[in-house]
Amino acid sequence: MKRIVGKENVQTSNAAKISYSFDATAGFQHSPDVIISPENAEQIQAIVKVCHENKIPIVPRGSGTNLAAGTTPNEGGVVLLFNHLDKILELDEENLTITVQPGVITQEVIEYVENKDLFYPPDPSSKKISTIGGNVNENSGGLRGLKYGVTKDYVLGVKAVLSNGEILHTGGKLAKDVAGYDLTNLLVGSEGTLAIITEITLKLLPKPTYKKTILTMFDSLELAGDAVSQIISKKIIPTTLEFMDQGTVRVVEEFNKIGLPTDCEAILLIEQDGSEETVREEMKAISNICSQVGATEIHEAEDEYQAEQLRTARRDALSALARLRPTTILEDATVPRSKIAEMVREINRISDKYDVMIQTFGHAGDGNLHPTCLTDLRNEKEMERVEHALDEIFQASIDLGGTITGEHGVGEMKAPYLEWKVGKTGIDLMKNIKQAIDPHNILNPGKIFAKSTKKRVVVNNG
Amino acid sequence: MKRIVGKENVQTSNAAKISYSFDATAGFQHSPDVIISPENAEQIQAIVKVCHENKIPIVPRGSGTNLAAGTTPNEGGVVLLFNHLDKILELDEENLTITVQPGVITQEVIEYVENKDLFYPPDPSSKKISTIGGNVNENSGGLRGLKYGVTKDYVLGVKAVLSNGEILHTGGKLAKDVAGYDLTNLLVGSEGTLAIITEITLKLLPKPTYKKTILTMFDSLELAGDAVSQIISKKIIPTTLEFMDQGTVRVVEEFNKIGLPTDCEAILLIEQDGSEETVREEMKAISNICSQVGATEIHEAEDEYQAEQLRTARRDALSALARLRPTTILEDATVPRSKIAEMVREINRISDKYDVMIQTFGHAGDGNLHPTCLTDLRNEKEMERVEHALDEIFQASIDLGGTITGEHGVGEMKAPYLEWKVGKTGIDLMKNIKQAIDPHNILNPGKIFAKSTKKRVVVNNG
Repeated sequence: MKRIVGKENVQTSNAAKISYSFDATAGFQHSPDVIISPENAEQIQAIVKVCHENKIPIVPRGSGTNLAAGTTPNEGGVVLLFNHLDKILELDEENLTITVQPGVITQEVIEYVENKDLFYPPDPSSKKISTIGGNVNENSGGLRGLKYGVTKDYVLGVKAVLSNGEILHTGGKLAKDVAGYDLTNLLVGSEGTLAIITEITLKLLPKPTYKKTILTMFDSLELAGDAVSQIISKKIIPTTLEFMDQGTVRVVEEFNKIGLPTDCEAILLIEQDGSEETVREEMKAISNICSQVGATEIHEAEDEYQAEQLRTARRDALSALARLRPTTILEDATVPRSKIAEMVREINRISDKYDVMIQTFGHAGDGNLHPTCLTDLRNEKEMERVEHALDEIFQASIDLGGTITGEHGVGEMKAPYLEWKVGKTGIDLMKNIKQAIDPHNILNPGKIFAKSTKKRVVVNNG
Repeated sequence: MKRIVGKENVQTSNAAKISYSFDATAGFQHSPDVIISPENAEQIQAIVKVCHENKIPIVPRGSGTNLAAGTTPNEGGVVLLFNHLDKILELDEENLTITVQPGVITQEVIEYVENKDLFYPPDPSSKKISTIGGNVNENSGGLRGLKYGVTKDYVLGVKAVLSNGEILHTGGKLAKDVAGYDLTNLLVGSEGTLAIITEITLKLLPKPTYKKTILTMFDSLELAGDAVSQIISKKIIPTTLEFMDQGTVRVVEEFNKIGLPTDCEAILLIEQDGSEETVREEMKAISNICSQVGATEIHEAEDEYQAEQLRTARRDALSALARLRPTTILEDATVPRSKIAEMVREINRISDKYDVMIQTFGHAGDGNLHPTCLTDLRNEKEMERVEHALDEIFQASIDLGGTITGEHGVGEMKAPYLEWKVGKTGIDLMKNIKQAIDPHNILNPGKIFAKSTKKRVVVNNG
């Protein structure tokens, strides 16, 4: 390895091994054997060939911000870093594309294109530290998903190293391309298990000219859920439709001190962008809907500074909650958006049933909730109850027509639950694909597919 | 088979075999052994199991409107029809989804949702006869692709029968879902080679409230190409940005008699939708750009009737051109949109070089062109020149960073060219996926993958 990348790019110290033994997910830790920082695709190719021949696992890792234990080296081997592949390669203003290396920070891409009046919509809460390569591997979402979709909707093509060391090019600067199977989309969200992405071409949009932000308060979760449903069925698709429950609002306010009301049951943060006239009109309609549904207060952000404060408050929800207890387990249950209120009620019922602390926030417009369990890994008894509670949350989500993960990925953490969503037929199909593309199972092994599936609990709500 | 679907749903007459021996693609014909019309997914499952055991090919076929010989039974076997699976199952206005069977006509879906002020954007030119299942299998595009994307952008989930007879459910009414590999997107555009889709859930949008249509004329292809580039780089994304060259305009006018000017070199049909104010503003900006670039005329459709006439004229381009010569071969070369003018020039050069008649129209905004070769299959010498010309068009497209097919698919017709776009690495990967999912190769065999790749011509333009 040192011959391939130079000894300065190979780490084997205990300190380094510990640093890369875990990611942002609580409770998952495995030591890698070596941490390597290649400088280009050719070096990655050489590394992969060595690993392929010797059946050594490779775990590609951006900033390790993922929340599903997607970058834990659970079978040891190589952690592959992208800190040297951090260049923006080309902005093409005629074709509205940007080509980047995977190690570029998401926020850097967003700001770079906004300076040219262009727009890269996916904005995961971790965007200030996450890498674009990590986003692509996880198919990250964000706060603007309702109107603009998720990462996969913006990936036009990639360059990637396959497990046999061959280099694959998919897609291009093309609005349309149906030449064979959609390998681009297969790689996006494959969590580093099918190939190592070394270059990404992203689609851009024109930057919206106007934006408006409001914050609405409700006395019950049901009312907030009703407001979400009614906004959408009135044929308005806001950019952002975010939800925080009372517990979350309280800690966020304590953390940020921006004057959020801590006595309401639920808050919706709503944003719309577009042309000024349309935005004004739609935000007026949205305010009316919220009032009619029974919002207790509706605040409009006076300027971009205030709006950004509100967004930041929402983005900081996880960090704020994390201060309450030693261990934070963030979930990602996602349901059809019409089921949001019902799902929040289920989460609260489950939280009571198992006597565990769960606060919920998330992307209400997408039906994508983040029930967050605040607990303590060291307390075995409590952790047992937490596990039961999370199982039941996943189950509730599936029963409502939802999924076990909306934007965080399966990783090591949710692998035992995957079959609940995709069935044995789905898992077998995915395993066959994995086997066909990475026959030695060297690319991020132990992710997505678990050794065994969790048994579904028989729930008796009566 | 008669036991499974009843004898009234099994055809083996010579007349039937001939009817289903070809599709809308000239020059490809193979007889099936039997034509079967199942009534539900369970019958399809039973048919597939029989075929799997006996290694009998199955060719799923909607209306057979595809233009890449995607539904030709080139290894005989079963042609599977969806005429009984033609129901709209559910419109969900809260989640903005519609669930349909694959045999529903595309136009029926479009009209059904528009009656509820909702919007299903993909609108292939064949929408009045094509089925939604065909669209999904081919990942069809259309005239609104520039702003709204293609079929895959609207498929949220499918129910499908795998080659082993198992039933797979993917996705759901979910805005976000990252539970494992994106099987939905893998099946969309897989041309019936990976599974038989029996149910589809589609995403809908609110119907735009206002629409405006203009027609602009240019004295040269370059100027039309410049106008396209400038509109996009001014950060305006029209719904529709369609191109027709002079030859196409002439036959379309002869066919439709709606008063298109037949003396200009190129026409752009431009549409925008959205809120009235924004549409008016952007269409004014577009008109200004076209004038500055040097448009000789700009006509605004006075009402929806006139606008629909213009759209219909463009949609009828293929039918109109088809009247000129006995055989019509429609191509689907797609380039980055900044290369449109260059690509049209290349097509004209190639047309002259081989002395074959090629007229070009297409989706300029997507870089998706349809060079259409008017010829006569019975004239062997001419057909040889046509083949060389088409080879060189594909090559030009690839050399400009484009692809061999933007929206029609690979089918049997373009299989020998696929490697030019995706490389040997790409083809091998796709073949591995096919082998993993359909090991007996019973699902639409002979499509996408050719026995051998066309040799690339060495072009000397000097």
